[in-house]
Amino acid sequence: MLERNNMNKRPLILVTNDDGITAPGMRTLISVMIELGDVVVVAPDRPQSGMGHAVTLDAPLYCEKVSIDQEVQAAYQFSGTPADCVKFAVSTLLDRKPDLCVSGINHGSNSSINVIYSGTMSAAIEAGIEGIPSIGFSLLDYSWDANFEPLKKEIKKMTQKVLAQGLPKDIILNVNFPNIPDFKGVKICRQARANWHEKFDERTTPHGKKYYWLQGEFVNHDLGEDTDEWALKNGYISVVPVQFDLTAYKAMEALKNLNF
Amino acid sequence: MLERNNMNKRPLILVTNDDGITAPGMRTLISVMIELGDVVVVAPDRPQSGMGHAVTLDAPLYCEKVSIDQEVQAAYQFSGTPADCVKFAVSTLLDRKPDLCVSGINHGSNSSINVIYSGTMSAAIEAGIEGIPSIGFSLLDYSWDANFEPLKKEIKKMTQKVLAQGLPKDIILNVNFPNIPDFKGVKICRQARANWHEKFDERTTPHGKKYYWLQGEFVNHDLGEDTDEWALKNGYISVVPVQFDLTAYKAMEALKNLNF
Repeated sequence: MLERNNMNKRPLILVTNDDGITAPGMRTLISVMIELGDVVVVAPDRPQSGMGHAVTLDAPLYCEKVSIDQEVQAAYQFSGTPADCVKFAVSTLLDRKPDLCVSGINHGSNSSINVIYSGTMSAAIEAGIEGIPSIGFSLLDYSWDANFEPLKKEIKKMTQKVLAQGLPKDIILNVNFPNIPDFKGVKICRQARANWHEKFDERTTPHGKKYYWLQGEFVNHDLGEDTDEWALKNGYISVVPVQFDLTAYKAMEALKNLNF
Repeated sequence: MLERNNMNKRPLILVTNDDGITAPGMRTLISVMIELGDVVVVAPDRPQSGMGHAVTLDAPLYCEKVSIDQEVQAAYQFSGTPADCVKFAVSTLLDRKPDLCVSGINHGSNSSINVIYSGTMSAAIEAGIEGIPSIGFSLLDYSWDANFEPLKKEIKKMTQKVLAQGLPKDIILNVNFPNIPDFKGVKICRQARANWHEKFDERTTPHGKKYYWLQGEFVNHDLGEDTDEWALKNGYISVVPVQFDLTAYKAMEALKNLNF
């Protein structure tokens, strides 16, 4: 059931994100990955937070090879969404299927319902759809100068295990780190049932036209101790196994009774 | 378990899509819904196919009330994504929570893995996250002048049942119609395990710069007779119950054994 990596060659690791190639979170992730394998970076050429699983169907896409001050095989900026980046890397830039895809480290949480809106996780999920073991990493700190140092050891350990032992078929890991210097440990969790209560901020342009900014308050209705929210609040790293089969199997019988 | 509608008042129905308010698929859906309740339409102001569950975090959004030649309570064009449209409708435009949200009818398939990339389904799923019974409808014909007539009777029947009996908690329906005049019936299905094999089409601008168009071939690896792909190929309307809890519960034990 586990897809194992061929241990005789150095693994090929695709690194991507949704914040762009200059993001300190991505630079931290690269610094860990170059210790573990050959790294190719493909990042969006502008911030793509909240892009969900968008793909670009009706616009031309541009790719630019860039130099970075880290020992990678190659690094590219791509004008598409995070999911586009993975599609382009796998289909066009790489000469073989990567052994692993890692996305992040995101500046901000992708726990609970945020997984749905997340560009970071959509890149990881896209790689999962293409049959590549894949992990998305996020830190619960939105600031650009967040402290990613404490994450490095944990990410290295986790990634080594995934490279050595693989992941269950069609499963992607959604890993979130609490914003503290010492972690209590790692918890395998389910996604908490939370959502955003939106309030659009209404403003007026200098030309008199009304416009709105999306804003919201995160509301967690789910206090289960097996949830990612609980783990993060209590100092643990949360790991949620994520699937892209959205079928609600348990609801199938109830629906058959509706007699459509 | 089923959330029932209050049958004493005329239901409030939110209609949305990802193709915009001029789309014949949406107009067909509106024509059915005005027979069943009070209809408010909120559509993106430009095509948003493939937008997945994107939300707009870093751009101002504009809303315009528009007149259409159908008996709706109100119709709006909104400059956000399909998920933004639902967030804006529920938080700002509507004075009460709608009894139902319907999205579509999409011009083209949202079966199998397409549910992940679909703007139509992201709108329906967003409404589901907000606790509104919700259905996305799609026809397997991408053309603008697709024949939606045969769908009307089926959509009306299905919607009446959902209005009367509700849906299981946190479940959204993904309904796809084969492109044929007579349907063999309705099948409750699981999402087929298929994906897109991408091939980016490389071209050159008049100014000598390379650019790429995303294109791909849909490959279905899953021949199960309980899948949406099987149902659609065999003349049935497919109904997949969709959930936004992405947790892969079955993988949790295997992951605990990895000892992160």
